[in-house]
Amino acid sequence: MTERTLVKNLAASPDGPVAVSGWVDTVRDQKKVQFVVLRDESGAVQLVNPRTDETEEVAEIISGLSQGSFITVTGELKHDERVKLGGIEVKLATLVVETAAIPETPIAADSGIDKRMDWRFLDLRRPEQNLVFRVQTTLEHAWRTYWVEHDFIEIHTPKLMASASESRAELFEVDYFEGKAYLAQSPQFFKQMAQPAGFGKVFEVGPAFRADPSFTSRHATEFTSVDAEISWIDSHEDVMQLHEELMVAGLRAVKEKHGEEILALFGVELEVPTQPFPRIPLAEAKRIVAERGYVVPREDDDMDPEGERQIAAYVKETYGHDFVFLTDYAASIRPFYHMRHADDVTLTNSYDLIYNGVEISTGAQREHRVEVLIEQAKEKGLDPEELDFYLDFFRYGVPPHGGFGMGLSRVLMLMLHQTNLREVVYLFRGPTRLLP
Amino acid sequence: MTERTLVKNLAASPDGPVAVSGWVDTVRDQKKVQFVVLRDESGAVQLVNPRTDETEEVAEIISGLSQGSFITVTGELKHDERVKLGGIEVKLATLVVETAAIPETPIAADSGIDKRMDWRFLDLRRPEQNLVFRVQTTLEHAWRTYWVEHDFIEIHTPKLMASASESRAELFEVDYFEGKAYLAQSPQFFKQMAQPAGFGKVFEVGPAFRADPSFTSRHATEFTSVDAEISWIDSHEDVMQLHEELMVAGLRAVKEKHGEEILALFGVELEVPTQPFPRIPLAEAKRIVAERGYVVPREDDDMDPEGERQIAAYVKETYGHDFVFLTDYAASIRPFYHMRHADDVTLTNSYDLIYNGVEISTGAQREHRVEVLIEQAKEKGLDPEELDFYLDFFRYGVPPHGGFGMGLSRVLMLMLHQTNLREVVYLFRGPTRLLP
Repeated sequence: MTERTLVKNLAASPDGPVAVSGWVDTVRDQKKVQFVVLRDESGAVQLVNPRTDETEEVAEIISGLSQGSFITVTGELKHDERVKLGGIEVKLATLVVETAAIPETPIAADSGIDKRMDWRFLDLRRPEQNLVFRVQTTLEHAWRTYWVEHDFIEIHTPKLMASASESRAELFEVDYFEGKAYLAQSPQFFKQMAQPAGFGKVFEVGPAFRADPSFTSRHATEFTSVDAEISWIDSHEDVMQLHEELMVAGLRAVKEKHGEEILALFGVELEVPTQPFPRIPLAEAKRIVAERGYVVPREDDDMDPEGERQIAAYVKETYGHDFVFLTDYAASIRPFYHMRHADDVTLTNSYDLIYNGVEISTGAQREHRVEVLIEQAKEKGLDPEELDFYLDFFRYGVPPHGGFGMGLSRVLMLMLHQTNLREVVYLFRGPTRLLP
Repeated sequence: MTERTLVKNLAASPDGPVAVSGWVDTVRDQKKVQFVVLRDESGAVQLVNPRTDETEEVAEIISGLSQGSFITVTGELKHDERVKLGGIEVKLATLVVETAAIPETPIAADSGIDKRMDWRFLDLRRPEQNLVFRVQTTLEHAWRTYWVEHDFIEIHTPKLMASASESRAELFEVDYFEGKAYLAQSPQFFKQMAQPAGFGKVFEVGPAFRADPSFTSRHATEFTSVDAEISWIDSHEDVMQLHEELMVAGLRAVKEKHGEEILALFGVELEVPTQPFPRIPLAEAKRIVAERGYVVPREDDDMDPEGERQIAAYVKETYGHDFVFLTDYAASIRPFYHMRHADDVTLTNSYDLIYNGVEISTGAQREHRVEVLIEQAKEKGLDPEELDFYLDFFRYGVPPHGGFGMGLSRVLMLMLHQTNLREVVYLFRGPTRLLP
């Protein structure tokens, strides 16, 4: 490996010889002295080259440096309070250009989001973007650590399927040798399969695909789905308890590791939520929202995005909480596999989790009685024969179970107060976006 | 949640009332006493019901119990050395059938693998299968913990692409709105993209797709790829050092947590390998294999599976090691993006990692000089224009970098001395297998 000190570790290093590697952020090429701001994955540092006969060789390289070029330098680290950038600078001894960048950078700080997506690999050099993915790493690791410590099994379910996993409407079709396959819209059927398989508790973080032609700021044709499914629940309440523990574990880890940087770069003071999260039945939520003067303009029983914002505002005002579980959705707007109330079959044992005003997840107890499941499928206009491989999971014994699916990038978007999913996805995929 | 004690925790519990949930493994319905072996995700325990007038209600349920049904029981735990199954039994008080299984179980212990794949959710109930996925969980968590502790960033690269990521030969085509998309054969291009993006070190565990029509015991059309890519390397040696540290961390964690159980169920005594792993240039490996009497029957410069077994046997005899890096593959049999030796362009800075005689991974230093990269692409018959989005990654500054991709299930297969990938994949996908 190239011997180098990460920029973030320079402040704590003593004055003396150091080697640093990264890319050129800015160059100030003055007559008597040259300054280069070098950035690496951990931060930025000022390099300085006073022009003398001795330093002329390095000076010539600096004069030809283009922004974005990757360089390796050696020099003398010096702590100096007068230096604005972190109170340190490196007086250059040597400078090697590993790869020179084309001088014209195709995007600027004020480029539109579509242009920035075209050049995502350059856009990701911004410290805010780097932070997004370090936060993602910490968040996922906190979740997985929780799961592993609680005896969950990690599964990788297939993304190639013989039929739809959710609806036929948003299904991508794949040429599969002489036949057809379909891309999994969720790991729903296969994470449920782990229950009759006797796995007890499972999780998966993986891609899911929706052929959704809409162009909203929070939809993508491919997204990272965070899924858990557990056996032996009594109701969706057990799923919600797991869910809120995960959110607390994730937010605690992120705040601890990145809280200051998130405040500095996004102006967001992260809060670790208290437990339990507020729970409001959907019907009551709609009444509350109506009392606030907003009548959800839908003919079905569902919420809409503005309704979700309104109920979140109410929860924030009333309970000071960023999260709310909306529970007991009507059966008419839930998939056939959601279990219904024992005493009111028009309602389901299900919930949506709202975070900072936007839905990030749906969870439910699943119907595990195969004859009920078949009836509910028929009621939704589905053909039980096409679902036969799935229905088999329930015919040879299965424990009561439930779980949730959650959009990873939605959580990040809302955590960092972003308004567009594209800002927090490594490479966005939409109806007209397959590149880079 | 259903209040229950996991079976594995019963041995350490005091005699007295317990509740246990799981599925029916076997029933022995005798005149004077009934025995049920109940299994959950953690183990098996004997339930006993002496037949008296008092226990007649439970006795009737047991007489009607089908194998595989999920039940919840309460009773008195009793430690008794005479009980073969763990020296404990539970004298039943209540027994509730959550879901009754169809009495005819479609697979038996001696069913062929294809039949077992048809009923994978039942096949997975076997303790060996349960262990495979607990081992997988521990292995992945050990890797991710290593990565997180070493400041890697976790990425989720898109599986929908505008063009091929490896070769056009094994590419799945997707109907994508008005056009076409392709399923990623590897995250290669996108994990490399993290390097000009300044991410430093990245990892990903996710699906990859190959439209490979072959029916071998170690290929699948969809597999879980374990990928890492790091900046500022000097050569593939740096990648190999990372790679062997990961294998050691993973095997150490698995041995510690599951070593005894692996020995009991698979008869395998896991070994934590010593570092460094042996490294043998491919040309030398072929000479060694030839000296052992095996001449690789290939016209190109590659190894073949028998050659890999032979060199692994040599390494085991000579160094007592289960792993070997075969290095410096010929440029003719490596992808265009592998960097070539500075002093011999017929060889690449690349390696394969062999574990217990089978290749589990390919790693390399990547060519980061765009003009060289274009030449190498042309030489392989590729059209640089089609690769333009990828080549752009190298035009705006990029550090020297390299990485590896590894098949998760291959590692598990070889670790547990299995001969068929299907045994260690949650749900196998092949040219004629899309179900369940």
